[in-house]
Amino acid sequence: MKTPPPLRNLRFTVRYDGTAFHGWQTQPGFRTVQETFEAALQSVTQEPRLRANPSGRTDAGVHAVGQVVNVYSVTRHAGPVLVKAVNARLPEDVCVRSCDDAPQSFCANKDAVKKRYRYRLYDGRPQDPFSRRYAHHSRKRLDETAMDAGAKLMVGRHDFRCFETNYPNRLTSVRTVYAATVVRTEPEFLHFDVEADGFLYNMVRAMTGTLLKVGRGEWPPEMVTAILAALDRRAAGPNAPPEGLCLMSVTYPSAPETTWPTP
Amino acid sequence: MKTPPPLRNLRFTVRYDGTAFHGWQTQPGFRTVQETFEAALQSVTQEPRLRANPSGRTDAGVHAVGQVVNVYSVTRHAGPVLVKAVNARLPEDVCVRSCDDAPQSFCANKDAVKKRYRYRLYDGRPQDPFSRRYAHHSRKRLDETAMDAGAKLMVGRHDFRCFETNYPNRLTSVRTVYAATVVRTEPEFLHFDVEADGFLYNMVRAMTGTLLKVGRGEWPPEMVTAILAALDRRAAGPNAPPEGLCLMSVTYPSAPETTWPTP
Repeated sequence: MKTPPPLRNLRFTVRYDGTAFHGWQTQPGFRTVQETFEAALQSVTQEPRLRANPSGRTDAGVHAVGQVVNVYSVTRHAGPVLVKAVNARLPEDVCVRSCDDAPQSFCANKDAVKKRYRYRLYDGRPQDPFSRRYAHHSRKRLDETAMDAGAKLMVGRHDFRCFETNYPNRLTSVRTVYAATVVRTEPEFLHFDVEADGFLYNMVRAMTGTLLKVGRGEWPPEMVTAILAALDRRAAGPNAPPEGLCLMSVTYPSAPETTWPTP
Repeated sequence: MKTPPPLRNLRFTVRYDGTAFHGWQTQPGFRTVQETFEAALQSVTQEPRLRANPSGRTDAGVHAVGQVVNVYSVTRHAGPVLVKAVNARLPEDVCVRSCDDAPQSFCANKDAVKKRYRYRLYDGRPQDPFSRRYAHHSRKRLDETAMDAGAKLMVGRHDFRCFETNYPNRLTSVRTVYAATVVRTEPEFLHFDVEADGFLYNMVRAMTGTLLKVGRGEWPPEMVTAILAALDRRAAGPNAPPEGLCLMSVTYPSAPETTWPTP
Protein backbone atom coordinates (compact mmCIF):
# COMPACT_ATOMS: atom_id res chain seq x y z
CA MET A 1 0.00 0.00 0.00
CA LYS A 2 1.34 3.42 -0.96
CA THR A 3 1.75 5.99 1.81
CA PRO A 4 -0.38 9.05 1.02
CA PRO A 5 1.74 12.08 0.06
CA PRO A 6 2.34 14.46 2.98
CA LEU A 7 0.21 17.57 3.21
CA ARG A 8 2.33 20.64 2.57
CA ASN A 9 1.64 24.27 3.42
CA LEU A 10 2.94 26.24 0.43
CA ARG A 11 3.72 29.91 0.75
CA PHE A 12 3.56 31.90 -2.52
CA THR A 13 4.48 35.50 -3.28
CA VAL A 14 2.04 36.80 -5.90
CA ARG A 15 2.23 39.95 -8.03
CA TYR A 16 -0.66 41.36 -9.99
CA ASP A 17 -1.81 44.33 -12.02
CA GLY A 18 -5.24 44.80 -10.44
CA THR A 19 -6.71 46.80 -13.33
CA ALA A 20 -8.61 43.95 -14.96
CA PHE A 21 -9.41 42.02 -11.78
CA HIS A 22 -12.45 42.43 -9.59
CA GLY A 23 -10.21 42.23 -6.54
CA TRP A 24 -8.72 39.19 -4.80
CA GLN A 25 -11.74 37.30 -3.56
CA THR A 26 -13.68 34.88 -5.76
CA GLN A 27 -17.08 36.22 -6.78
CA PRO A 28 -19.37 34.42 -9.22
CA GLY A 29 -19.46 36.21 -12.57
CA PHE A 30 -16.31 38.28 -11.96
CA ARG A 31 -12.65 37.77 -12.87
CA THR A 32 -10.71 37.66 -9.59
CA VAL A 33 -7.09 36.99 -8.65
CA GLN A 34 -8.03 34.19 -6.26
CA GLU A 35 -9.97 32.21 -8.86
CA THR A 36 -7.30 32.80 -11.53
CA PHE A 37 -4.47 31.73 -9.22
CA GLU A 38 -6.29 28.69 -7.79
CA ALA A 39 -7.22 27.48 -11.28
CA ALA A 40 -3.60 27.67 -12.47
CA LEU A 41 -2.29 25.88 -9.39
CA GLN A 42 -4.98 23.18 -9.54
CA SER A 43 -4.13 22.58 -13.17
CA VAL A 44 -0.51 21.93 -12.13
CA THR A 45 -1.11 19.78 -9.04
CA GLN A 46 -4.21 18.03 -10.44
CA GLU A 47 -5.97 18.52 -7.11
CA PRO A 48 -9.71 19.11 -7.48
CA ARG A 49 -9.99 21.98 -5.01
CA LEU A 50 -7.29 24.19 -3.53
CA ARG A 51 -7.90 27.22 -1.37
CA ALA A 52 -5.47 30.15 -1.48
CA ASN A 53 -5.42 32.14 1.74
CA PRO A 54 -4.01 35.67 1.29
CA SER A 55 -2.35 38.05 3.76
CA GLY A 56 -5.36 40.23 3.06
CA ARG A 57 -7.94 40.62 0.32
CA THR A 58 -7.30 43.49 -2.06
CA ASP A 59 -10.21 45.41 -3.58
CA ALA A 60 -11.12 45.71 -7.25
CA GLY A 61 -8.45 47.68 -9.15
CA VAL A 62 -5.85 47.50 -6.36
CA HIS A 63 -2.40 46.15 -7.31
CA ALA A 64 0.07 43.92 -5.48
CA VAL A 65 3.82 43.65 -5.85
CA GLY A 66 4.29 41.25 -2.95
CA GLN A 67 1.02 39.64 -1.91
CA VAL A 68 1.62 36.50 0.19
CA VAL A 69 -0.74 33.52 0.19
CA ASN A 70 -0.61 30.05 1.69
CA VAL A 71 -2.16 26.91 0.19
CA TYR A 72 -2.39 23.37 1.59
CA SER A 73 -1.48 20.86 -1.10
CA VAL A 74 -0.21 17.29 -1.49
CA THR A 75 1.79 18.04 -4.66
CA ARG A 76 5.31 16.57 -4.72
CA HIS A 77 6.72 19.30 -6.99
CA ALA A 78 9.53 21.42 -5.57
CA GLY A 79 8.91 25.16 -5.05
CA PRO A 80 10.86 26.41 -8.11
CA VAL A 81 9.11 23.84 -10.32
CA LEU A 82 5.73 25.06 -9.08
CA VAL A 83 6.70 28.68 -9.78
CA LYS A 84 7.53 27.90 -13.41
CA ALA A 85 4.55 25.62 -14.02
CA VAL A 86 2.01 27.96 -12.41
CA ASN A 87 3.38 31.00 -14.27
CA ALA A 88 3.09 29.10 -17.56
CA ARG A 89 -0.66 28.81 -16.82
CA LEU A 90 -1.29 32.33 -15.51
CA PRO A 91 -2.39 35.27 -17.69
CA GLU A 92 0.12 38.09 -18.13
CA ASP A 93 -1.38 40.39 -15.48
CA VAL A 94 -0.58 38.05 -12.60
CA CYS A 95 2.49 35.99 -11.72
CA VAL A 96 4.02 34.12 -8.80
CA ARG A 97 7.46 35.29 -7.72
CA SER A 98 8.36 32.59 -5.22
CA CYS A 99 7.11 29.41 -3.55
CA ASP A 100 8.48 27.71 -0.45
CA ASP A 101 7.33 25.29 2.23
CA ALA A 102 5.96 26.99 5.32
CA PRO A 103 5.29 25.36 8.72
CA GLN A 104 1.93 23.56 8.90
CA SER A 105 0.61 26.24 11.22
CA PHE A 106 1.56 29.16 8.95
CA CYS A 107 -1.32 31.46 8.07
CA ALA A 108 -0.55 34.28 5.59
CA ASN A 109 -3.22 36.44 7.18
CA LYS A 110 -2.87 35.88 10.92
CA ASP A 111 0.93 35.58 11.03
CA ALA A 112 1.65 38.84 9.19
CA VAL A 113 3.45 41.19 11.54
CA LYS A 114 3.85 44.12 9.14
CA LYS A 115 2.38 45.26 5.83
CA ARG A 116 3.53 48.00 3.55
CA TYR A 117 1.31 49.83 1.07
CA ARG A 118 2.19 52.48 -1.50
CA TYR A 119 -0.33 54.94 -2.91
CA ARG A 120 0.91 56.65 -6.09
CA LEU A 121 -0.31 60.11 -7.03
CA TYR A 122 0.15 62.07 -10.26
CA ASP A 123 -0.52 65.80 -10.20
CA GLY A 124 0.52 66.89 -13.69
CA ARG A 125 -1.82 68.06 -16.42
CA PRO A 126 -3.27 66.37 -18.41
CA GLN A 127 -3.77 62.75 -17.31
CA ASP A 128 -0.67 60.68 -18.15
CA PRO A 129 -1.14 57.80 -20.64
CA PHE A 130 1.53 55.68 -18.92
CA SER A 131 0.45 56.01 -15.30
CA ARG A 132 -3.34 56.13 -15.71
CA ARG A 133 -3.69 52.56 -14.36
CA TYR A 134 -1.09 52.87 -11.59
CA ALA A 135 -1.51 56.33 -10.07
CA HIS A 136 -4.46 58.45 -9.05
CA HIS A 137 -4.63 61.72 -10.97
CA SER A 138 -5.04 64.84 -8.88
CA ARG A 139 -6.07 67.71 -11.13
CA LYS A 140 -4.79 70.14 -8.53
CA ARG A 141 -1.09 70.50 -7.70
CA LEU A 142 -0.34 68.89 -4.34
CA ASP A 143 1.77 70.24 -1.48
CA GLU A 144 3.91 67.25 -0.58
CA THR A 145 5.44 68.97 2.47
CA ALA A 146 2.03 69.53 4.06
CA MET A 147 0.97 65.97 3.15
CA ASP A 148 4.10 64.51 4.71
CA ALA A 149 3.46 66.52 7.89
CA GLY A 150 -0.09 65.15 7.98
CA ALA A 151 1.15 61.60 7.35
CA LYS A 152 3.57 61.88 10.28
CA LEU A 153 0.60 62.56 12.59
CA MET A 154 -0.87 59.17 11.61
CA VAL A 155 2.17 57.32 12.96
CA GLY A 156 1.74 55.49 16.26
CA ARG A 157 -0.75 53.25 18.04
CA HIS A 158 -4.22 54.68 17.53
CA ASP A 159 -7.83 53.69 17.21
CA PHE A 160 -8.13 54.17 13.43
CA ARG A 161 -11.89 53.75 13.09
CA CYS A 162 -11.99 57.21 11.49
CA PHE A 163 -10.34 55.55 8.44
CA GLU A 164 -12.43 52.34 8.44
CA THR A 165 -15.29 51.67 6.05
CA ASN A 166 -18.28 49.94 7.72
CA TYR A 167 -16.87 50.08 11.26
CA PRO A 168 -16.89 47.76 13.14
CA ASN A 169 -15.79 44.82 11.03
CA ARG A 170 -12.84 43.66 13.09
CA LEU A 171 -12.50 42.84 16.79
CA THR A 172 -10.63 46.09 17.31
CA SER A 173 -9.86 49.12 15.21
CA VAL A 174 -6.63 49.80 17.09
CA ARG A 175 -3.57 49.45 14.87
CA THR A 176 0.05 50.58 14.99
CA VAL A 177 1.35 52.62 12.07
CA TYR A 178 5.15 52.30 12.08
CA ALA A 179 5.91 54.76 9.30
CA ALA A 180 4.01 57.07 6.95
CA THR A 181 5.70 59.36 4.45
CA VAL A 182 4.79 61.41 1.40
CA VAL A 183 7.60 62.17 -1.03
CA ARG A 184 7.67 63.65 -4.51
CA THR A 185 9.69 61.07 -6.43
CA GLU A 186 9.46 62.78 -9.85
CA PRO A 187 8.34 66.28 -10.86
CA GLU A 188 4.72 65.12 -11.30
CA PHE A 189 4.60 62.01 -9.09
CA LEU A 190 4.19 61.48 -5.34
CA HIS A 191 4.36 58.33 -3.23
CA PHE A 192 2.48 57.88 0.02
CA ASP A 193 4.19 54.95 1.76
CA VAL A 194 2.64 53.51 4.89
CA GLU A 195 3.67 50.60 7.08
CA ALA A 196 1.60 49.12 9.90
CA ASP A 197 0.98 45.94 11.86
CA GLY A 198 -2.31 45.68 9.98
CA PHE A 199 -4.87 47.74 8.11
CA LEU A 200 -8.62 48.14 8.49
CA TYR A 201 -11.02 47.92 5.56
CA ASN A 202 -10.18 50.75 3.09
CA MET A 203 -7.81 52.30 5.65
CA VAL A 204 -5.05 53.34 3.24
CA ARG A 205 -7.54 54.80 0.78
CA ALA A 206 -9.20 56.84 3.55
CA MET A 207 -5.79 58.01 4.81
CA THR A 208 -4.90 59.03 1.24
CA GLY A 209 -8.23 60.82 0.72
CA THR A 210 -7.52 62.77 3.91
CA LEU A 211 -3.96 63.63 2.85
CA LEU A 212 -5.28 64.75 -0.56
CA LYS A 213 -7.37 67.37 1.22
CA VAL A 214 -4.24 68.48 3.05
CA GLY A 215 -2.23 68.50 -0.18
CA ARG A 216 -4.81 70.68 -1.93
CA GLY A 217 -4.72 73.15 0.96
CA GLU A 218 -8.31 72.46 2.09
CA TRP A 219 -7.17 71.23 5.51
CA PRO A 220 -4.04 72.01 7.57
CA PRO A 221 -1.85 68.98 8.40
CA GLU A 222 -2.90 69.24 12.09
CA MET A 223 -6.44 68.32 11.03
CA VAL A 224 -5.23 64.70 11.06
CA THR A 225 -4.93 64.81 14.85
CA ALA A 226 -8.50 66.08 15.18
CA ILE A 227 -9.76 63.42 12.76
CA LEU A 228 -8.11 60.62 14.74
CA ALA A 229 -9.61 62.03 17.95
CA ALA A 230 -13.09 62.22 16.40
CA LEU A 231 -13.30 58.38 16.06
CA ASP A 232 -15.81 58.99 13.28
CA ARG A 233 -15.42 58.01 9.61
CA ARG A 234 -17.31 61.13 8.55
CA ALA A 235 -14.56 63.33 10.00
CA ALA A 236 -11.92 62.06 7.52
CA GLY A 237 -11.59 62.59 3.78
CA PRO A 238 -13.23 60.33 1.17
CA ASN A 239 -11.66 57.03 0.07
CA ALA A 240 -9.13 57.66 -2.71
CA PRO A 241 -9.78 55.53 -5.83
CA PRO A 242 -8.21 52.05 -6.13
CA GLU A 243 -5.84 52.46 -9.10
CA GLY A 244 -3.17 54.28 -7.06
CA LEU A 245 -2.96 51.61 -4.36
CA CYS A 246 -0.45 48.78 -4.27
CA LEU A 247 0.33 46.19 -1.58
CA MET A 248 4.12 46.28 -1.59
CA SER A 249 5.19 43.66 0.96
CA VAL A 250 4.13 41.57 3.91
CA THR A 251 6.51 40.70 6.74
CA TYR A 252 6.38 37.55 8.89
CA PRO A 253 8.41 36.67 11.99
CA SER A 254 11.81 35.64 10.67
CA ALA A 255 12.06 32.55 12.89
CA PRO A 256 9.43 29.91 12.19
CA GLU A 257 7.09 29.43 15.15
CA THR A 258 7.84 25.72 15.47
CA THR A 259 11.58 25.91 16.11
CA TRP A 260 12.78 23.43 18.71
CA PRO A 261 16.02 23.70 20.66
CA THR A 262 18.59 21.27 19.29
CA PRO A 263 19.03 18.50 21.91
CA MET B 1 -15.96 91.70 -46.06
CA LYS B 2 -14.30 89.72 -43.28
CA THR B 3 -10.55 89.11 -43.49
CA PRO B 4 -9.84 85.40 -43.59
CA PRO B 5 -8.23 84.15 -40.38
CA PRO B 6 -4.46 83.86 -40.65
CA LEU B 7 -2.97 80.43 -41.27
CA ARG B 8 -1.06 79.27 -38.20
CA ASN B 9 1.59 76.59 -37.89
CA LEU B 10 0.83 74.88 -34.59
CA ARG B 11 3.48 72.83 -32.84
CA PHE B 12 2.16 70.13 -30.46
CA THR B 13 3.98 67.83 -28.05
CA VAL B 14 2.15 64.51 -28.00
CA ARG B 15 2.47 61.61 -25.55
CA TYR B 16 1.07 58.14 -26.17
CA ASP B 17 1.02 54.60 -24.88
CA GLY B 18 1.61 52.79 -28.18
CA THR B 19 0.23 49.43 -27.00
CA ALA B 20 -3.21 49.73 -28.58
CA PHE B 21 -2.15 51.80 -31.61
CA HIS B 22 -1.03 50.48 -34.96
CA GLY B 23 1.74 53.06 -34.98
CA TRP B 24 1.61 56.75 -35.89
CA GLN B 25 0.63 56.75 -39.53
CA THR B 26 -2.97 56.52 -40.67
CA GLN B 27 -3.83 53.15 -42.22
CA PRO B 28 -7.35 52.21 -43.27
CA GLY B 29 -8.83 49.66 -40.88
CA PHE B 30 -6.32 50.27 -38.08
CA ARG B 31 -6.37 52.50 -34.99
CA THR B 32 -3.45 54.93 -35.35
CA VAL B 33 -2.20 57.91 -33.35
CA GLN B 34 -2.31 60.21 -36.38
CA GLU B 35 -5.96 59.54 -37.15
CA THR B 36 -6.92 59.74 -33.45
CA PHE B 37 -5.10 63.04 -32.95
CA GLU B 38 -6.30 64.63 -36.20
CA ALA B 39 -9.93 63.68 -35.46
CA ALA B 40 -9.75 65.26 -31.98
CA LEU B 41 -8.16 68.46 -33.31
CA GLN B 42 -10.60 68.72 -36.25
CA SER B 43 -13.49 68.35 -33.84
CA VAL B 44 -12.15 71.35 -31.89
CA THR B 45 -11.26 73.64 -34.82
CA GLN B 46 -14.17 72.55 -37.02
CA GLU B 47 -11.83 72.35 -40.00
CA PRO B 48 -12.72 69.57 -42.43
CA ARG B 49 -9.21 68.22 -42.93
CA LEU B 50 -6.05 68.79 -40.91
CA ARG B 51 -2.75 67.04 -41.46
CA ALA B 52 -0.44 66.35 -38.49
CA ASN B 53 3.20 66.12 -39.51
CA PRO B 54 5.33 64.27 -36.94
CA SER B 55 9.06 64.46 -36.15
CA GLY B 56 9.07 60.84 -37.26
CA ARG B 57 6.56 58.03 -37.58
CA THR B 58 6.63 55.51 -34.76
CA ASP B 59 5.87 51.84 -35.45
CA ALA B 60 3.03 49.77 -34.01
CA GLY B 61 3.48 49.27 -30.27
CA VAL B 62 6.16 51.97 -29.88
CA HIS B 63 5.53 54.64 -27.24
CA ALA B 64 6.21 58.37 -27.16
CA VAL B 65 6.75 60.68 -24.21
CA GLY B 66 7.62 63.73 -26.30
CA GLN B 67 6.60 63.30 -29.93
CA VAL B 68 6.47 66.66 -31.74
CA VAL B 69 4.06 67.39 -34.61
CA ASN B 70 3.15 70.48 -36.58
CA VAL B 71 -0.27 71.25 -38.06
CA TYR B 72 -1.40 74.16 -40.28
CA SER B 73 -4.70 75.51 -39.02
CA VAL B 74 -6.80 78.70 -39.14
CA THR B 75 -8.23 78.21 -35.64
CA ARG B 76 -8.24 81.33 -33.46
CA HIS B 77 -7.97 79.40 -30.17
CA ALA B 78 -4.89 80.09 -28.05
CA GLY B 79 -2.42 77.23 -27.45
CA PRO B 80 -3.46 76.41 -23.85
CA VAL B 81 -7.14 76.40 -24.90
CA LEU B 82 -6.36 73.96 -27.70
CA VAL B 83 -4.46 71.70 -25.27
CA LYS B 84 -7.47 71.45 -22.95
CA ALA B 85 -10.04 71.07 -25.70
CA VAL B 86 -8.09 68.45 -27.66
CA ASN B 87 -7.33 66.43 -24.51
CA ALA B 88 -11.02 66.43 -23.63
CA ARG B 89 -11.62 64.65 -26.96
CA LEU B 90 -8.67 62.24 -26.89
CA PRO B 91 -8.86 58.69 -25.48
CA GLU B 92 -6.85 58.01 -22.33
CA ASP B 93 -3.84 56.42 -24.08
CA VAL B 94 -2.85 59.63 -25.88
CA CYS B 95 -2.63 63.25 -24.77
CA VAL B 96 -1.14 66.56 -25.88
CA ARG B 97 1.25 68.17 -23.44
CA SER B 98 1.77 71.56 -25.10
CA CYS B 99 0.81 73.67 -28.09
CA ASP B 100 2.49 76.81 -29.36
CA ASP B 101 2.78 78.83 -32.56
CA ALA B 102 5.79 77.92 -34.68
CA PRO B 103 7.19 79.89 -37.64
CA GLN B 104 5.37 79.24 -40.94
CA SER B 105 8.39 77.35 -42.23
CA PHE B 106 8.67 75.03 -39.21
CA CYS B 107 8.66 71.32 -40.09
CA ALA B 108 8.67 68.89 -37.13
CA ASN B 109 10.48 66.32 -39.24
CA LYS B 110 13.05 68.28 -41.20
CA ASP B 111 13.95 70.81 -38.52
CA ALA B 112 14.69 68.25 -35.79
CA VAL B 113 18.37 68.50 -34.83
CA LYS B 114 18.38 65.77 -32.16
CA LYS B 115 16.18 62.90 -31.08
CA ARG B 116 16.39 60.79 -27.98
CA TYR B 117 15.03 57.26 -27.66
CA ARG B 118 14.90 54.96 -24.64
CA TYR B 119 14.65 51.18 -24.90
CA ARG B 120 13.59 49.55 -21.61
CA LEU B 121 14.64 46.01 -20.77
CA TYR B 122 13.47 43.74 -17.96
CA ASP B 123 15.59 40.69 -17.16
CA GLY B 124 13.88 39.27 -14.08
CA ARG B 125 11.91 36.05 -13.95
CA PRO B 126 9.02 35.66 -14.55
CA GLN B 127 7.55 38.35 -16.83
CA ASP B 128 6.48 41.39 -14.77
CA PRO B 129 2.76 42.27 -14.82
CA PHE B 130 3.47 46.00 -14.49
CA SER B 131 6.12 46.42 -17.18
CA ARG B 132 4.89 43.92 -19.79
CA ARG B 133 3.68 46.75 -22.05
CA TYR B 134 6.66 49.07 -21.49
CA ALA B 135 9.77 46.88 -21.39
CA HIS B 136 11.05 43.97 -23.43
CA HIS B 137 11.49 40.84 -21.33
CA SER B 138 14.85 39.11 -21.65
CA ARG B 139 14.59 35.64 -20.17
CA LYS B 140 18.34 35.59 -19.74
CA ARG B 141 20.14 37.85 -17.25
CA LEU B 142 21.92 40.68 -19.10
CA ASP B 143 25.45 42.00 -18.58
CA GLU B 144 24.90 45.74 -18.52
CA THR B 145 28.63 46.54 -18.40
CA ALA B 146 29.29 44.66 -21.65
CA MET B 147 26.20 46.24 -23.23
CA ASP B 148 27.32 49.73 -22.24
CA ALA B 149 30.76 49.06 -23.73
CA GLY B 150 29.07 47.94 -26.97
CA ALA B 151 26.80 51.00 -26.96
CA LYS B 152 29.81 53.31 -26.61
CA LEU B 153 31.20 51.89 -29.89
CA MET B 154 28.05 53.07 -31.68
CA VAL B 155 28.75 56.71 -30.78
CA GLY B 156 30.04 58.95 -33.56
CA ARG B 157 29.41 59.72 -37.22
CA HIS B 158 28.97 56.43 -39.07
CA ASP B 159 27.19 54.85 -41.98
CA PHE B 160 24.54 52.99 -39.98
CA ARG B 161 23.05 50.90 -42.80
CA CYS B 162 23.88 47.79 -40.76
CA PHE B 163 21.02 48.86 -38.44
CA GLU B 164 18.55 49.90 -41.18
CA THR B 165 15.59 47.80 -42.30
CA ASN B 166 15.03 47.87 -46.09
CA TYR B 167 18.15 49.91 -46.90
CA PRO B 168 18.18 52.22 -48.79
CA ASN B 169 15.11 54.22 -47.85
CA ARG B 170 16.76 57.55 -47.16
CA LEU B 171 19.15 59.69 -49.18
CA THR B 172 21.98 58.68 -46.89
CA SER B 173 22.42 56.19 -44.08
CA VAL B 174 25.09 58.32 -42.40
CA ARG B 175 23.99 59.59 -39.01
CA THR B 176 25.70 60.99 -35.91
CA VAL B 177 25.06 59.24 -32.61
CA TYR B 178 25.86 61.75 -29.84
CA ALA B 179 25.40 59.44 -26.88
CA ALA B 180 24.52 55.81 -26.21
CA THR B 181 24.45 54.29 -22.73
CA VAL B 182 23.14 51.17 -21.04
CA VAL B 183 22.47 51.43 -17.31
CA ARG B 184 20.75 49.17 -14.81
CA THR B 185 18.27 51.53 -13.19
CA GLU B 186 16.65 48.94 -10.89
CA PRO B 187 17.68 45.39 -9.91
CA GLU B 188 15.72 43.90 -12.84
CA PHE B 189 15.50 46.85 -15.25
CA LEU B 190 17.91 48.34 -17.79
CA HIS B 191 17.66 51.46 -19.94
CA PHE B 192 19.37 51.82 -23.30
CA ASP B 193 19.37 55.56 -24.00
CA VAL B 194 20.48 56.79 -27.40
CA GLU B 195 20.66 60.29 -28.84
CA ALA B 196 21.37 61.13 -32.51
CA ASP B 197 20.80 63.74 -35.17
CA GLY B 198 18.35 61.28 -36.72
CA PHE B 199 17.50 57.60 -36.92
CA LEU B 200 17.08 55.21 -39.83
CA TYR B 201 14.08 52.87 -40.13
CA ASN B 202 14.13 50.46 -37.15
CA MET B 203 17.61 51.69 -36.18
CA VAL B 204 17.13 51.73 -32.40
CA ARG B 205 15.50 48.30 -32.42
CA ALA B 206 18.40 46.85 -34.47
CA MET B 207 20.92 48.50 -32.13
CA THR B 208 19.06 47.00 -29.15
CA GLY B 209 18.89 43.55 -30.74
CA THR B 210 22.65 43.74 -31.24
CA LEU B 211 23.27 44.86 -27.66
CA LEU B 212 21.03 42.05 -26.39
CA LYS B 213 23.40 39.55 -28.01
CA VAL B 214 26.27 41.30 -26.24
CA GLY B 215 24.35 41.31 -22.94
CA ARG B 216 23.66 37.58 -23.16
CA GLY B 217 27.35 36.91 -23.78
CA GLU B 218 26.87 35.67 -27.37
CA TRP B 219 29.01 38.48 -28.81
CA PRO B 220 31.84 40.52 -27.28
CA PRO B 221 31.24 44.30 -27.17
CA GLU B 222 33.92 44.82 -29.86
CA MET B 223 31.65 42.98 -32.30
CA VAL B 224 29.80 46.31 -32.70
CA THR B 225 32.81 47.79 -34.50
CA ALA B 226 32.91 44.86 -36.94
CA ILE B 227 29.14 45.13 -37.53
CA LEU B 228 29.39 48.83 -38.36
CA ALA B 229 32.28 48.10 -40.76
CA ALA B 230 30.30 45.33 -42.49
CA LEU B 231 27.71 47.83 -43.83
CA ASP B 232 25.29 44.89 -43.99
CA ARG B 233 22.03 44.49 -42.05
CA ARG B 234 22.62 40.75 -41.79
CA ALA B 235 25.75 41.32 -39.70
CA ALA B 236 23.80 42.91 -36.82
CA GLY B 237 21.38 41.38 -34.32
CA PRO B 238 17.63 41.09 -34.96
CA ASN B 239 15.23 43.98 -34.35
CA ALA B 240 14.16 44.03 -30.71
CA PRO B 241 10.34 44.05 -30.26
CA PRO B 242 8.45 47.37 -30.16
CA GLU B 243 7.05 47.42 -26.60
CA GLY B 244 10.38 48.45 -25.04
CA LEU B 245 10.88 51.46 -27.31
CA CYS B 246 9.90 55.02 -26.47
CA LEU B 247 10.59 58.31 -28.27
CA MET B 248 11.63 60.52 -25.35
CA SER B 249 12.27 63.95 -26.87
CA VAL B 250 12.98 65.87 -30.05
CA THR B 251 15.21 68.94 -30.09
CA TYR B 252 14.92 71.89 -32.47
CA PRO B 253 17.24 74.87 -32.96
CA SER B 254 16.52 77.16 -30.04
CA ALA B 255 16.36 80.34 -32.14
CA PRO B 256 13.49 80.44 -34.63
CA GLU B 257 14.74 80.54 -38.21
CA THR B 258 12.82 83.66 -39.14
CA THR B 259 14.13 86.08 -36.54
CA TRP B 260 14.65 89.61 -37.85
CA PRO B 261 16.84 92.24 -36.24
CA THR B 262 14.73 94.84 -34.46
CA PRO B 263 14.93 98.09 -36.51
